[in-house]
Amino acid sequence: MKHTQCLIVGAGPAGLSAAIYTARAGVDTLALGCNPKVAGDYDIDNYFGFPETVTGRELIERGMAQAKRFGATLRCERVMAVHHGENGNFVVKSDTDEYAADAVIIAAGVARVRPGIANLADYEGKGVSYCVSCDGFFYRGKSVLVLGEGDYAANQALELTTFTPQVAIYTQGKAPVISEGFAARLSQAGIPVIEQTVATLAGEPALAAARLANGTELPVDGIFIAMGQASALDFAKTLGLPLRGAFIQADHDQKTALPGVFAAGDCVGRFLQISVAVGEGAKAGKSAIAYLKQAGAAHTKTS
Amino acid sequence: MKHTQCLIVGAGPAGLSAAIYTARAGVDTLALGCNPKVAGDYDIDNYFGFPETVTGRELIERGMAQAKRFGATLRCERVMAVHHGENGNFVVKSDTDEYAADAVIIAAGVARVRPGIANLADYEGKGVSYCVSCDGFFYRGKSVLVLGEGDYAANQALELTTFTPQVAIYTQGKAPVISEGFAARLSQAGIPVIEQTVATLAGEPALAAARLANGTELPVDGIFIAMGQASALDFAKTLGLPLRGAFIQADHDQKTALPGVFAAGDCVGRFLQISVAVGEGAKAGKSAIAYLKQAGAAHTKTS
Repeated sequence: MKHTQCLIVGAGPAGLSAAIYTARAGVDTLALGCNPKVAGDYDIDNYFGFPETVTGRELIERGMAQAKRFGATLRCERVMAVHHGENGNFVVKSDTDEYAADAVIIAAGVARVRPGIANLADYEGKGVSYCVSCDGFFYRGKSVLVLGEGDYAANQALELTTFTPQVAIYTQGKAPVISEGFAARLSQAGIPVIEQTVATLAGEPALAAARLANGTELPVDGIFIAMGQASALDFAKTLGLPLRGAFIQADHDQKTALPGVFAAGDCVGRFLQISVAVGEGAKAGKSAIAYLKQAGAAHTKTS
Repeated sequence: MKHTQCLIVGAGPAGLSAAIYTARAGVDTLALGCNPKVAGDYDIDNYFGFPETVTGRELIERGMAQAKRFGATLRCERVMAVHHGENGNFVVKSDTDEYAADAVIIAAGVARVRPGIANLADYEGKGVSYCVSCDGFFYRGKSVLVLGEGDYAANQALELTTFTPQVAIYTQGKAPVISEGFAARLSQAGIPVIEQTVATLAGEPALAAARLANGTELPVDGIFIAMGQASALDFAKTLGLPLRGAFIQADHDQKTALPGVFAAGDCVGRFLQISVAVGEGAKAGKSAIAYLKQAGAAHTKTS
């Protein structure tokens, strides 16, 4: 497993600003992320320093060049999971690789897609879960669904096979967008990918059935939500980070409740603006540097 | 007295970022400040979006152009005091003008100069004050010194003459840098400007004497500190804002304890970086916009 001192999940303004700070301080820095939300052709008017309009794409490219200039490594990989590792470090799994990191900065935006089930909240903690590594254990030998259409859902479904063979993916009516590698592994594991929609849930006191949009009722013990890509909230839940509504709780220094884990940008939910993301990224970078120094890791640079 | 909806004290990265937000939202915005600390020829490497080094001066000029583009008014005036006004608004006095403002954003950096008196802290609240409009009243007919070398000290000394005729300015050994207008008013008021240094204070239980560096002991009832320019801390003390050490206390939305007053950038003391100042400025701007909307002032635009 590759090792990095500081792994940044997300390569938008918050992640790149953090990378500029950590890399510039000599910390071995890896930022993982592809096509951040902001990197489009639309105009940005209100980020200080650009009197003429700049496009999101141009701004991101400038920030990437800047982070690289200070020695940060940027890779277009999608992060699937962030786990506790051994010796107090962290394990980050992407769609193509796995890393051990001494500190993690979550700057993954708010890309979370909801599955569109009316009474979903009634069953959270009673059969509905967002985190296989947290709750998969409770479904040993039981029948579970994973809701999602992409590699993230595939990864969650494959992880579930450690606990039970009765796993199916429902795409909520979306066309699956699963890469070849994951598709092959799903097929090998006998996990079907079904283009149908779970519309409502039923059961008392806990989840017992999923009612599909076509009227079918499906007996089921657990449902794991994994729509779209893995989000900051998913990582937060896996790590056991306290939330503030739908956002990660972070203090003025961007520290989460967990030493070594920092959060910045939209996933912290203060004011979803590039300016704020950049400032929070800088503070998260500073806090990560201080944490690594204290942990004695900053002078044992490896890559 | 001129009126503005949002008056921003300071025209560095925090103040200009705030101005970009408030002006863009249609709020009548005036930012007062000259030559912010950052506007030098030195290189800035770590502000996201500038892969090649940018000078502080260039960055400030770009930000000024940007704020003006959205309709903010920028004036190179030095703010002397921020007071409570009538009807819950605020009065801001500069070296050349006076304004009524519905909301104030303090983004005045940390330029505070200390007078270099060893036992100064022992006498704070016991004869040593930072705020004529707060404490001047207590020195009616008494003998007071103002420590400072510039227009700010001159302004404080002139305000003191409302309460007592026994006022002198000690420059702490510095050459006075008092503008013509203020010099004329000091002379007219009979306030001497003395190029000597108060070294230690004496008196029990309260201030009774100032000992000069040359050995002279001067009987004195009060000393007002007004070194250099008026700082964010001075404004905070005048308004009665709670502090966090030497910084203004502000929450995650940059709100101070006083409705209508916001603080951003170095004077809040989180991490003295342009990135952070810009993010805080954006949040202060957002909070000021919300405050003005709620106060019903946002749609009665005047200038």
